Amino acid sequence: MTECIMDELRIIEIKKSVFADNDRDANLLREELKQQGVFLLNLMSAPGSGKTTTLIQTINRLKERLRVAVMEADIDSDVDARKMKETTGVESIQLHTGGMCHLDAEMTRQGLAALSLEKTDLVILENVGNLVCPAEFDTGSSANAMILSVPEGDDKPLKYPLMFSVCDLVLINKTDVMPYFDFDLERCKQNILMRNPKATIIPISAKTGEGIDDFAQWLVNEVQNWKK
Amino acid sequence: MTECIMDELRIIEIKKSVFADNDRDANLLREELKQQGVFLLNLMSAPGSGKTTTLIQTINRLKERLRVAVMEADIDSDVDARKMKETTGVESIQLHTGGMCHLDAEMTRQGLAALSLEKTDLVILENVGNLVCPAEFDTGSSANAMILSVPEGDDKPLKYPLMFSVCDLVLINKTDVMPYFDFDLERCKQNILMRNPKATIIPISAKTGEGIDDFAQWLVNEVQNWKK
Repeated sequence: MTECIMDELRIIEIKKSVFADNDRDANLLREELKQQGVFLLNLMSAPGSGKTTTLIQTINRLKERLRVAVMEADIDSDVDARKMKETTGVESIQLHTGGMCHLDAEMTRQGLAALSLEKTDLVILENVGNLVCPAEFDTGSSANAMILSVPEGDDKPLKYPLMFSVCDLVLINKTDVMPYFDFDLERCKQNILMRNPKATIIPISAKTGEGIDDFAQWLVNEVQNWKK
Repeated sequence: MTECIMDELRIIEIKKSVFADNDRDANLLREELKQQGVFLLNLMSAPGSGKTTTLIQTINRLKERLRVAVMEADIDSDVDARKMKETTGVESIQLHTGGMCHLDAEMTRQGLAALSLEKTDLVILENVGNLVCPAEFDTGSSANAMILSVPEGDDKPLKYPLMFSVCDLVLINKTDVMPYFDFDLERCKQNILMRNPKATIIPISAKTGEGIDDFAQWLVNEVQNWKK
């Protein structure tokens, strides 16, 4: 792990894992976080679904109730962590995956090591924008969530089955532009529930604020249950 | 390779490659296709950028000028190949990657083996919807193209550098919804050209038809040059 500080923004260059058994390592990390009272949300989506904008809106409504930190994973660039830090003020770091398409538990651990976990209730990992590979690797998260945005289409659960089956929460973002797209919300919900009948589904618009309070409340409930 | 025929739609279950040296295999495939006079376009994008809709529009304008065949790669589902076959009438097959996030040259070869190449000028491979992994594997294509759609944002070349640097052509799709998104076309073009100064950029709307003739003409020119 290499850490460099640019304009006071911390960028972590994470290294490829050497652990053969990621599932075991992920369970171990989850247990460690549970003992520390830290809830880790693994947030996944396709590129451009609005992860960062959604998080900024949500964290600004949450930060009086929970102590939040954010890890922004990207192949390259530091635009997300910079934006997050400037607009929310919460602890934000950028994880560079060095071309890798996903994070596993050990890579997540490298990011967590750079955070002040003793002062944190909720860590949000913004995973690499990709509907395929991140679904295959348990990061050690307390819960998995994903954002599907309206312009991507209501058929995505048919095409990316694993992603939808591993997510506890699906946010359907950009509902404000629904009139301009051929997107059937009910059909979308049915497609999601076909992959995971237990999934919680919240339609949101990071632009207008629709549904953001519901997402924030979901996080508060999850964190409270985790700390019990 | 397993082939199954459902309702007359051919679905190819492709197997993971055993070739260690994909670059060498890709060059070999490219040379073989050149000798057969077949141009292979590898079309990539994020999920939901409009690859299938764009292809349908384009092929319907092209099919009198070129003999086209399509390979639709997906982790699961056969909706794309079915739609392609029904709306264009050209030879269309579905490639199932069995969870894999990309295609390499050997996997592409498995798909090509199921097509009637002697009756084809242009094969379009619709790669798995993913901006990360497909960029890392040469499929043996004659050219690479990608679709970036307006709702994904003009900053994507900053976040997915390799994808933009390997593409000869970038289509900027869904220009019809530009008024509803914070998308700067000129900034987007600059971001693309920063990754690949030689990239051809064509703004299109698969919905209104804007730019589709330009894309079709680009394909006709590329195929003609390839056959020289």
